[in-house]
Amino acid sequence: MAKALRACVFLLRLFAAAATLVAAVVMATSHETTSYFGFTMEAKFQYTSSFVFFVIANAIASGYSLLVLLIPSTSSFSRLVIATDVIIGMLLTSAVAATGALSELGKNGNQHAGWLPICGQIHEFCNHVMGALICAFVGLLIYLLILFHTFYVVINPLFP
Amino acid sequence: MAKALRACVFLLRLFAAAATLVAAVVMATSHETTSYFGFTMEAKFQYTSSFVFFVIANAIASGYSLLVLLIPSTSSFSRLVIATDVIIGMLLTSAVAATGALSELGKNGNQHAGWLPICGQIHEFCNHVMGALICAFVGLLIYLLILFHTFYVVINPLFP
Repeated sequence: MAKALRACVFLLRLFAAAATLVAAVVMATSHETTSYFGFTMEAKFQYTSSFVFFVIANAIASGYSLLVLLIPSTSSFSRLVIATDVIIGMLLTSAVAATGALSELGKNGNQHAGWLPICGQIHEFCNHVMGALICAFVGLLIYLLILFHTFYVVINPLFP
Repeated sequence: MAKALRACVFLLRLFAAAATLVAAVVMATSHETTSYFGFTMEAKFQYTSSFVFFVIANAIASGYSLLVLLIPSTSSFSRLVIATDVIIGMLLTSAVAATGALSELGKNGNQHAGWLPICGQIHEFCNHVMGALICAFVGLLIYLLILFHTFYVVINPLFP
């Protein structure tokens, strides 16, 4: 049973690494140039600091997920992983939240601030960002699963 | 020693409750009307969904911090608190990240998206948002402190 659970967590970490890597790559390759009433508009992830942060955070989460797989479960450092898992979970949360806030703005705009929606003009770019967001969100959910599994195993609050 | 540490955590939870309550109140009372080239501009936190989320998240975190103080440390539920602490920490992280992304946009704008900076016109509103952000960030840091203290006590990875 314990072996099966360990294999499960191993697989979850692999999935988390894949989801966050795909999120970083999809965001980093998002680029679109479009013409609008004779005015050329170019959209790149580098133009928005939150999107740059998103790529960096997902790349770190992906690399970390793979690195953790190398730590043997018998090592005393394996118990420290719970703290680093929480930090990576928070890093992913902040990347998803910041990118989500700006994506919503790109889609709906904010008339009170005079910020127009731009996703009608750069449709493909917005789809890329949305795809990257979904992948990062899946990665975040997997991290939550891993964390709650760790809490269950290490702390075991309801079945002492 | 254990009693002093428990008192410390009690105080930290009180500070976290205060910081997040102040963050929610400062954001919820942010309101400014200004005239700009004969055009009236009104800024309210309700006009931006991320700011509404910020108020709700901080109010939840504040209420939760006070509620947890009522759980006796001998209760078996007190060990479940580590999981709820992580969830509240992530909630605060997402609120700070989304609000931070939009504050940065309000201050610097994004010329590639055609979104102009607006903090020059609604200076007081932006100061309110910045104050609320700082308070929420302090609350988040206190949550991280509480979490790492819990990890140290419950899991005690380096001194088994």
